[in-house]
Amino acid sequence: MSDHLQQYLIRNAPYYRPTSNEIALYEAAYALRLPLILKGPTGCGKTRFVEYMAWKLRKPLITLACNEDMTASDLVGRYLLDAEGTVWHDGPLTSAVRHGGICYLDEVVEARQDTTVVIHPLTDARRILPLDKKGELVHAHPDFQLVMSYNPGYQSSAKDLKQSTRQRFGAMEFDYPDAEVESEIVAHEAGISRAIAARLVGVAKRSRVLKGRGLDEGISTRMLIHAGSLIRDGVNPVEACRMTMTLPLTDAADMLNALQGFVEAHFG
Amino acid sequence: MSDHLQQYLIRNAPYYRPTSNEIALYEAAYALRLPLILKGPTGCGKTRFVEYMAWKLRKPLITLACNEDMTASDLVGRYLLDAEGTVWHDGPLTSAVRHGGICYLDEVVEARQDTTVVIHPLTDARRILPLDKKGELVHAHPDFQLVMSYNPGYQSSAKDLKQSTRQRFGAMEFDYPDAEVESEIVAHEAGISRAIAARLVGVAKRSRVLKGRGLDEGISTRMLIHAGSLIRDGVNPVEACRMTMTLPLTDAADMLNALQGFVEAHFG
Amino acid sequence: MSDHLQQYLIRNAPYYRPTSNEIALYEAAYALRLPLILKGPTGCGKTRFVEYMAWKLRKPLITLACNEDMTASDLVGRYLLDAEGTVWHDGPLTSAVRHGGICYLDEVVEARQDTTVVIHPLTDARRILPLDKKGELVHAHPDFQLVMSYNPGYQSSAKDLKQSTRQRFGAMEFDYPDAEVESEIVAHEAGISRAIAARLVGVAKRSRVLKGRGLDEGISTRMLIHAGSLIRDGVNPVEACRMTMTLPLTDAADMLNALQGFVEAHFG
Amino acid sequence: MSDHLQQYLIRNAPYYRPTSNEIALYEAAYALRLPLILKGPTGCGKTRFVEYMAWKLRKPLITLACNEDMTASDLVGRYLLDAEGTVWHDGPLTSAVRHGGICYLDEVVEARQDTTVVIHPLTDARRILPLDKKGELVHAHPDFQLVMSYNPGYQSSAKDLKQSTRQRFGAMEFDYPDAEVESEIVAHEAGISRAIAARLVGVAKRSRVLKGRGLDEGISTRMLIHAGSLIRDGVNPVEACRMTMTLPLTDAADMLNALQGFVEAHFG
Amino acid sequence: MSDHLQQYLIRNAPYYRPTSNEIALYEAAYALRLPLILKGPTGCGKTRFVEYMAWKLRKPLITLACNEDMTASDLVGRYLLDAEGTVWHDGPLTSAVRHGGICYLDEVVEARQDTTVVIHPLTDARRILPLDKKGELVHAHPDFQLVMSYNPGYQSSAKDLKQSTRQRFGAMEFDYPDAEVESEIVAHEAGISRAIAARLVGVAKRSRVLKGRGLDEGISTRMLIHAGSLIRDGVNPVEACRMTMTLPLTDAADMLNALQGFVEAHFG
Amino acid sequence: MSDHLQQYLIRNAPYYRPTSNEIALYEAAYALRLPLILKGPTGCGKTRFVEYMAWKLRKPLITLACNEDMTASDLVGRYLLDAEGTVWHDGPLTSAVRHGGICYLDEVVEARQDTTVVIHPLTDARRILPLDKKGELVHAHPDFQLVMSYNPGYQSSAKDLKQSTRQRFGAMEFDYPDAEVESEIVAHEAGISRAIAARLVGVAKRSRVLKGRGLDEGISTRMLIHAGSLIRDGVNPVEACRMTMTLPLTDAADMLNALQGFVEAHFG
Repeated sequence: MSDHLQQYLIRNAPYYRPTSNEIALYEAAYALRLPLILKGPTGCGKTRFVEYMAWKLRKPLITLACNEDMTASDLVGRYLLDAEGTVWHDGPLTSAVRHGGICYLDEVVEARQDTTVVIHPLTDARRILPLDKKGELVHAHPDFQLVMSYNPGYQSSAKDLKQSTRQRFGAMEFDYPDAEVESEIVAHEAGISRAIAARLVGVAKRSRVLKGRGLDEGISTRMLIHAGSLIRDGVNPVEACRMTMTLPLTDAADMLNALQGFVEAHFG
Repeated sequence: MSDHLQQYLIRNAPYYRPTSNEIALYEAAYALRLPLILKGPTGCGKTRFVEYMAWKLRKPLITLACNEDMTASDLVGRYLLDAEGTVWHDGPLTSAVRHGGICYLDEVVEARQDTTVVIHPLTDARRILPLDKKGELVHAHPDFQLVMSYNPGYQSSAKDLKQSTRQRFGAMEFDYPDAEVESEIVAHEAGISRAIAARLVGVAKRSRVLKGRGLDEGISTRMLIHAGSLIRDGVNPVEACRMTMTLPLTDAADMLNALQGFVEAHFG
Repeated sequence: MSDHLQQYLIRNAPYYRPTSNEIALYEAAYALRLPLILKGPTGCGKTRFVEYMAWKLRKPLITLACNEDMTASDLVGRYLLDAEGTVWHDGPLTSAVRHGGICYLDEVVEARQDTTVVIHPLTDARRILPLDKKGELVHAHPDFQLVMSYNPGYQSSAKDLKQSTRQRFGAMEFDYPDAEVESEIVAHEAGISRAIAARLVGVAKRSRVLKGRGLDEGISTRMLIHAGSLIRDGVNPVEACRMTMTLPLTDAADMLNALQGFVEAHFG
Repeated sequence: MSDHLQQYLIRNAPYYRPTSNEIALYEAAYALRLPLILKGPTGCGKTRFVEYMAWKLRKPLITLACNEDMTASDLVGRYLLDAEGTVWHDGPLTSAVRHGGICYLDEVVEARQDTTVVIHPLTDARRILPLDKKGELVHAHPDFQLVMSYNPGYQSSAKDLKQSTRQRFGAMEFDYPDAEVESEIVAHEAGISRAIAARLVGVAKRSRVLKGRGLDEGISTRMLIHAGSLIRDGVNPVEACRMTMTLPLTDAADMLNALQGFVEAHFG
Repeated sequence: MSDHLQQYLIRNAPYYRPTSNEIALYEAAYALRLPLILKGPTGCGKTRFVEYMAWKLRKPLITLACNEDMTASDLVGRYLLDAEGTVWHDGPLTSAVRHGGICYLDEVVEARQDTTVVIHPLTDARRILPLDKKGELVHAHPDFQLVMSYNPGYQSSAKDLKQSTRQRFGAMEFDYPDAEVESEIVAHEAGISRAIAARLVGVAKRSRVLKGRGLDEGISTRMLIHAGSLIRDGVNPVEACRMTMTLPLTDAADMLNALQGFVEAHFG
Repeated sequence: MSDHLQQYLIRNAPYYRPTSNEIALYEAAYALRLPLILKGPTGCGKTRFVEYMAWKLRKPLITLACNEDMTASDLVGRYLLDAEGTVWHDGPLTSAVRHGGICYLDEVVEARQDTTVVIHPLTDARRILPLDKKGELVHAHPDFQLVMSYNPGYQSSAKDLKQSTRQRFGAMEFDYPDAEVESEIVAHEAGISRAIAARLVGVAKRSRVLKGRGLDEGISTRMLIHAGSLIRDGVNPVEACRMTMTLPLTDAADMLNALQGFVEAHFG
């Protein structure tokens, strides 16, 4: 592996609690270097899963948070002016392609289409990345794999992935874990008792029913861990939930009241 | 602490009048380095609060007024041409991440989404800032915390924060203080008597009822301090209120009349 | 005062005819360094007033005509390429902030919001200008004051100032002077008799009634001075009015006829 | 006069046939250096008139054809990279302002508003041009005058001039000359007999009635001169009119037939 | 003639089959250096005609395919950075203007308005090209002529030429030739018999009736030459027509069936 | 052939299973250097076909994935800054034109129109590429051919190719092969039995019926190969189909259920 990618190796095992056979499926896909899409709601553990797999497979993980202003050059690289004139600098995708690694495009539907079209020749039998501006064809390193994530219940159709992109990928679906597993995760990550974690999960479950009924999303596992951590540090549970679960989720007064009602029902 | 950040240390205690347990809650959040959203109307003291907390925690405070044309590069940095060629210059967010400090994004909903997506890897367990253009992963300094503010009653939904951003943050809610506390603040800051301050607060309270009924916002605490300062310097109170409280608030003739009526009722 | 700002000092007293206590009010606001908004129709004397005050206070006046394409960099400065590499050049706002002066943003509602957001930290207790691209915090010189102008009856609501900007400012309202004062001004500025000036003012007053009834604006004091100057130089008054008062104001044939009718009623 | 502007002097008297006292009015306006708007349909002689006046006044004439993509920098100048680093290059407006000359903005309503706002401080008593990017205030040369033209029957209201711009200018109105004068012009310019010129003018007069009834504009004096020149060189008059008067004017088959009918009625 | 333009001389006579007196008309227009618009459907021979005239007149021909992203700088030139600093490079229009030649703007309605406005001073009596960025006035070489083409049945009105542009030009109209002439052209160009060429023309004539009834355009002469060439090389005529005449023309299944029906009627 | 293009030669025969006389037709078109459009749904083998033909004809293949942000400069080349100043770098299209090769524009309807207009002079008798910015006319190498692909059932009409572009090209139509041939391809490419491949093809055929009835596209041959490969590596067939055929295709719950029903009908 290239020295440059050493900083992208994950040295300590991330905490990941599997809920089904997703680890074996990912390994089968990686064996084929099949590019993958991870679908699922925000904060349910997609990023943590890919970190865990990168650690397990001992591959560097290069993560790119996609956004509307990211250009193809931000992915593949560009010429920069040096004392010697213009010098080519590989972008993060090119680094992963050239030296071997998992390139993870987080929230890929936020990217402009030019950034997704750029990956097409990497995701079929050719496994090449043409650096048009440099006049170079980079053949992918045998370790290279491409992974992308998005939240299908969230983006507008205007931002949907093109079929010609989708059909080049395998896909895995993620959701919040069931109550018992989620309580276990929250208790472990926040350092609180299973009983308190279960009460937090109870609030979250009720909020998730309101998705599409006034809320864009329910309360995520990540928010429960924030609440649990404040409770562990001595903050009053109702105030901790207000700070980390209800106030960040919505600005609508009626929704805030409903959510705070759930909190008081479990902690009042 | 890096020399570079010395200029961002607040050396004298800013005047801040707490209204509840907000100082303890902020301290608990800072102990976790939980990123925070401060919600509340314009001019109610959000910026003053974060200045006070930065002073109390003895951390540098790097404030960024967000706007539509701010790019991710304005936050993270860019290459600039030097006699030696292109040299990387850290942006203000990168300075805070690298050297430790509180980075405060004021009116964050005005920012383009690429500037908010850039902060995602800083606001989960990874606490990293990838400088994609430089090919560097910056691990956040232990002192680093991210704080953002916005006015929930003000921005259009088109500018709403994305759920995948919101759920990474804790939140605190601010509002104008109650009449007695607000009079105390205005009297202290403007150097006028509590009696006159109370009359100014009386005008403001009546204007705030008109919010959404012809006014976008009511008269803020900040405007009362402006009026009080002019009165202290000998300006006629009705003229002082017109200059600092009613004329700046609206251009609509009927609203100006109504507001000026409130002024005359209290000072006429 | 910095040598650089010497060119912005106004050496000769501009002609300004006060209509109320506006000079004293401005002086009280300047004593607090309260940022000011000047509201009023085009051509009624806002720019002349701020020139007069800058002369009276002996402060340099840096005027910026705002427009849609003005960027924050046009205000605060930018890096320019030099034989030595990139060198920072202060923009006009930064010059005024650093060396002390009145910075006047004319027709501020034409500016993009990023240019107005940039001034927020200058207009509260902090009085600082963060040069994000340079990594420098400029503390305002004690003489610095910010003044902006706009025409409230003119701009679309889409271009309205944000409340978070408005509430940082005091405001003063301007209008065309009453007939006698306006005649005095026109006579003085154009070098014509009070009698002829009064006839020009008569035409203007009738045109101003048509504002919102087919005209966007009435005839301004400035236009009367143009007409008066041509008359002084021997141009036929009806032709002078047509050249400077009616033809420039509108392209609509019926409005031109109506206005030319007013002219002939006073000069025919 | 600066050497640089020598190339903009008009050495030979342009042919111009006055139709009223427009030459005297222009001279009166120039004596005041009053900025002028020339209104009128395309091809009626506005540009020729300003060329004639520049020749008569012996002032250089700097003409700028305005368009949507012209930036303020195209007018005022910019920094260019040189062997010595960045060097400022005056734009054509700045040249005229600095060294004295008539700057003529042709079809000004096509320009973006930032290019028109840039001229405001040049068109009031200040007569200055702030080069914000250079930090220089250019005081206009005593010979400098600004002239703009547009076609009021043509542009959309979206492209209308702002009142704050209009009210700084005097205006003159142009139209096609009456039949006899127009025949004289066409005969002179094309080198044909008055009789044939009169027949061409007859066709044009009938086309101008169709303006707003299927045609955006009627046939201009310029087109008649084109047709006359081809006739002088031996081209069949009906074909000459088709090539230079009807085919260029419209693509609509019914309008082409109607126009060609007028041609055949006069030349068939 | 300048060495630089030698590469734009057309050395061998292009095949052109006149259909009327268009060659004499063009020569008369060129004698006046009258700028010309060539109107007509795609693939009917406009480009071939201007190539033929350039060859006949022994003038270099500089062709520019216009498009939405072409800027005025692409036409007139720009500063480029060199070892010596920035050096001006003439654009193709400037080359033709300076050294003499026919500049042909193909599909001019695709160009942005700034690119068409740039040519105005070249197309009236002045015959000058102001290089605003360079501060130079180029007087046109006596050989210079401007020619533009467009397809009037095709472009949207939003892309229509402005009257102020149109009225500066003469115009010539082109259409597909009549059946006999078109068969002669196809036979000559594809190297097939007149009989087979006539059958191809028969298919084209029927397709042209469908213009505006499901097809944007009918089959052009150029497509017939493609089909004829494949037939000459032994491809089955029905397959050759499908490859070069019907499949490229439309994606609509019903239209493809109708067109393929015409093919089978003539070749089945 | 130029050394530079050696990297674009395809050294090993790509697997391609012809379904009709498409190879002979392509060879006839290449003999004329007729530019070609390949139409067909995503994942049906267009790219594989052009790779096969490039290998068979022993020509380098330069593939460009088109997108909205690709500029004409990305195709033809640009000046880059070097120690010696600006130096011209040929773009991939120019390389193919200059040195001889097949240039393949994949998904050409995604490109902006300026990138397609740039190819016009290459696709008629002239076979030239004007490098306007460089002032050079490149005459195409005898081996050069242009090929473009798109999916006619997919793009919006707003992105349709212009007639003036279409009529310069021949076209070939592609579709999914019939069941037997498709099974053969899937079995060969995935290394599974014909029986299992036939079951995968059965699922795909049923999905393709839903095109336009809730699905944008049916399951492609490429997806079947992905599924087959996972099955070959021991993944449960229902899970393999879910990962590679149904989950990537759509996010709609009802469609996912229908598709998964097809899978279970064939593999349950």
